[in-house]
Amino acid sequence: MAIDSDINLSSPNDSIRQRMFELIQRKQLEIVAALEAIEGNDTKFRSDSWERGAEGGGGRSMLIQDGRVFEKAGVNISKVHGVLPPQAVSQMRNDHSKLDLPAGTSLKFFACGLSLVIHPHNPHAPTTHLNYRYFETWDETGKPHTWWFGGGADLTPSYLYPEDAKQFHQAHKDALDKHDVSLYPRFKKWCDEYFLIKHRNETRGIGGIFFDDFDEFDAERSLKLVEDCFNAFLESYPAITRKRMDTPSTDAEKNWQQIRRGRYVEFNLVLDRGTQFGLRTPGSRVESILMSLPRTAGWVYDHHPEPGSREEELLQVLQNPIEWV
Amino acid sequence: MAIDSDINLSSPNDSIRQRMFELIQRKQLEIVAALEAIEGNDTKFRSDSWERGAEGGGGRSMLIQDGRVFEKAGVNISKVHGVLPPQAVSQMRNDHSKLDLPAGTSLKFFACGLSLVIHPHNPHAPTTHLNYRYFETWDETGKPHTWWFGGGADLTPSYLYPEDAKQFHQAHKDALDKHDVSLYPRFKKWCDEYFLIKHRNETRGIGGIFFDDFDEFDAERSLKLVEDCFNAFLESYPAITRKRMDTPSTDAEKNWQQIRRGRYVEFNLVLDRGTQFGLRTPGSRVESILMSLPRTAGWVYDHHPEPGSREEELLQVLQNPIEWV
Repeated sequence: MAIDSDINLSSPNDSIRQRMFELIQRKQLEIVAALEAIEGNDTKFRSDSWERGAEGGGGRSMLIQDGRVFEKAGVNISKVHGVLPPQAVSQMRNDHSKLDLPAGTSLKFFACGLSLVIHPHNPHAPTTHLNYRYFETWDETGKPHTWWFGGGADLTPSYLYPEDAKQFHQAHKDALDKHDVSLYPRFKKWCDEYFLIKHRNETRGIGGIFFDDFDEFDAERSLKLVEDCFNAFLESYPAITRKRMDTPSTDAEKNWQQIRRGRYVEFNLVLDRGTQFGLRTPGSRVESILMSLPRTAGWVYDHHPEPGSREEELLQVLQNPIEWV
Repeated sequence: MAIDSDINLSSPNDSIRQRMFELIQRKQLEIVAALEAIEGNDTKFRSDSWERGAEGGGGRSMLIQDGRVFEKAGVNISKVHGVLPPQAVSQMRNDHSKLDLPAGTSLKFFACGLSLVIHPHNPHAPTTHLNYRYFETWDETGKPHTWWFGGGADLTPSYLYPEDAKQFHQAHKDALDKHDVSLYPRFKKWCDEYFLIKHRNETRGIGGIFFDDFDEFDAERSLKLVEDCFNAFLESYPAITRKRMDTPSTDAEKNWQQIRRGRYVEFNLVLDRGTQFGLRTPGSRVESILMSLPRTAGWVYDHHPEPGSREEELLQVLQNPIEWV
């Protein structure tokens, strides 16, 4: 993988770019080690490095499939750079108000990030998603234009364990509070709003944190914030999984998990901006983008949980997000 | 269900509208009867009628789930009418060049159609999809603006049986040839192009026929063409299913079927115009739109069939569509 040496750009954020990439490389290995320790036997992640060729950049996908604990778990890092054509710039302008440019403008860009999705077998152990990324643009003369961080982490249980939700949210609140106590409430709300499956009027999971276009702190401080968020995930998710992964489960519970995974697929394929953008971008690696999809999923026509059941308990929370901490 | 009596519009195509709706009501029952006969035991389709309330219209969804032969089979009819807001008109203008109207124009519309998706359990029995619809618009003064028919039918096997593909295509070619021998080649090609999973560079299945914006014949003759296409489906798909539904299969074949169904989900959620349009339309019935999704599906990271295997044989055809007749 040539992704350590193929940056040939110059900007005041040179060192941030480099250090963000080092951070995600390090965190990919730490997360994979934590998950391999949970698997416990000799199961190892498969590692695939890939390059974007002429388009510039590359990445490493690490994956476990049909493991003892994890039905599917993928941890990707990628680094891409090149020129955003005017059409892509105008698509981004909807989301990134700072990209306020004349129509028809091309931009040079650099982006790197880590993203992961973990689907355990056991319906009592939650699915999770995490993504942290850094983005920079320059105008055509090479003048730095804008930069931002984005990302977050969220939990998608099939069965609600309020103590797990609290543990996950508390860890992320603690990480953000170290930087600014106003961040957690904003990022928690943003997460609930982003992961809303609009056509179902329910959220994908019980939330976490989400942010985008973040440049309120200087880059140095933002980088530290991202590192603290990574650590919040490492402190909470593996512990929650260990607690739930051997819970006895029934066929009916497994069936409910399949239905919830169907909803996960609906969100990712219909609504997730990253997936939509990736699938429409020439030269992107489809297998890495769709690594987020579960090994198994299902759709049951017009399914409604029994009133008072644990399935309905979850659905209530997805329809009315809770302040966990 | 009030969908027989709630049309309160007037146009020169009054009788076509009424007769198309009668046709799809009749064909829904014929198709359901053919599928119930294949199930063979006492399994009956569940029938749900629904109304669009203030928006105008309604429909009937008929469904079998976890049957003996069919894992999931849904046959929907619907009839909707009302006012298309300017935004929806401009979305449609991309597809329907005849809707060439000043920006900001609203349109009255009427639409009715039948759509079905059938997913058998047996990996040797193909999934199929069919949809025929009729559409009319009026301008704000009530003056008829345009009308067209659209639809088609296609086959999605997990394992290739060339004789099944030929039988399905031949039946549809025969139906179209009765009206004009130029139709089948055009509609066959249109089908291969429409059901291309762009990000995979493979078609969803082995094709069939697809057309849209069709007003080349008078409405009377178009209606007869649609009826003949319905009959082509009824002559071919049930016979193909009976031939394959008891073929012995292995776990590996079942796994391949799950992967193919994952691709089916990708097409429907990412690319299918009808699904995208439906999920974004307020007041639409999500359960009927997503009835097309399989009961079970799966995603395997970076899956490639063995060279020379039957799985690879199918993939070759999906990457290089064949002239079956």
